[in-house]
Amino acid sequence: MARMKVLNGPSIRRMPIYLYWLSVMQARGDEFASTTQLAEYIDLEPINVRKDIALTGVTGTVGVGYRVGDLIVGIRRYLGWDAMRPACLVGVGALGRALLGHREFQEAGLKFTCVFDSDEQKIGTVVRGHEVLSMDVMAETVAAMKPEVAVICVPAEGAQKVVDDLVDYGIKSFWSFSNVSLRVPEGVFIQREVIAGGYAMLSVKLAQMKRK
Amino acid sequence: MARMKVLNGPSIRRMPIYLYWLSVMQARGDEFASTTQLAEYIDLEPINVRKDIALTGVTGTVGVGYRVGDLIVGIRRYLGWDAMRPACLVGVGALGRALLGHREFQEAGLKFTCVFDSDEQKIGTVVRGHEVLSMDVMAETVAAMKPEVAVICVPAEGAQKVVDDLVDYGIKSFWSFSNVSLRVPEGVFIQREVIAGGYAMLSVKLAQMKRK
Repeated sequence: MARMKVLNGPSIRRMPIYLYWLSVMQARGDEFASTTQLAEYIDLEPINVRKDIALTGVTGTVGVGYRVGDLIVGIRRYLGWDAMRPACLVGVGALGRALLGHREFQEAGLKFTCVFDSDEQKIGTVVRGHEVLSMDVMAETVAAMKPEVAVICVPAEGAQKVVDDLVDYGIKSFWSFSNVSLRVPEGVFIQREVIAGGYAMLSVKLAQMKRK
Repeated sequence: MARMKVLNGPSIRRMPIYLYWLSVMQARGDEFASTTQLAEYIDLEPINVRKDIALTGVTGTVGVGYRVGDLIVGIRRYLGWDAMRPACLVGVGALGRALLGHREFQEAGLKFTCVFDSDEQKIGTVVRGHEVLSMDVMAETVAAMKPEVAVICVPAEGAQKVVDDLVDYGIKSFWSFSNVSLRVPEGVFIQREVIAGGYAMLSVKLAQMKRK
């Protein structure tokens, strides 16, 4: 199993929130964003805002702040979101559909170029502008479209087989919503999302609140 | 703004994955789960598995492991998932629909008892068994149904207003997918999910891989 430690996880996860607020500021014509302002928007201590932004290499001016445009460019460059990244998505269930329609991914450079499902009822239909393809043509489609990322939205039971196949077809990075730990060979990376994980956090917090 | 630090975040976020694998083991008749087995399934070091499980208070037997049934009960109790928790959901877009249909939430005790949207086209329609109600009846519906959690799936622009209203109606805990930092008064808690945050993590990892 390929585990690759990425430092600054919480900071990186916050970057899309910075981008959201910076776009709001840009739209209303703000030229500068102060640390204090961003701290208020992001709900974070100013010192942590400074640390987050330091990761991107963008520097500000004391007493003035960061140039909004520079910061947007800097964060996008840091994340590699300044270039378009072709992706495939497997599993057009409710979550798969939601991800295909997630507006934010456009700004992130994530572009779905092929979409697969094993359900005969779905194959050939068009979901959010994407024709759903059969898994039977996955090998040749991936070879032709060369997606850099595979987004896995199939149920837990079938997820490992899908990932194994995609690894065979040359995919080296996965973003999985399948709620299981999937095995990949050395040199291949999986980012795992557990939707219920956030609810687990909330649940433990609720228990803490009740105890007070 | 009410920030409440919850320790052991990563451990708590992994709990649904433990529950998934334990249910697989239970279904195939396994009586015991060893730390090594769980470590392999969860893709974690055994020492960390032991730490995770220690949080729940469930103890195992050396050389045998944990009783699968006990561990399931223990994790669910730790998370407060052994009781049913009524919830409302606001914003029946693609993500809202996906969450309403997320099978796993049933096991988590999360039960949607009322669903709202501001879109006239959606009001009155039935989405995954839930009649979509107008925001105009939110006050009286919340008063009647007493949801303990509000799941916020409205676009960023409208999210603060929805949260303000729900706070007025007595909601004290929020699970927000609205990708912005929302302000709540003291004593009210928000768990924020940033869907694109996972892709930001993956993007930074891809950049690291390329550099190697």
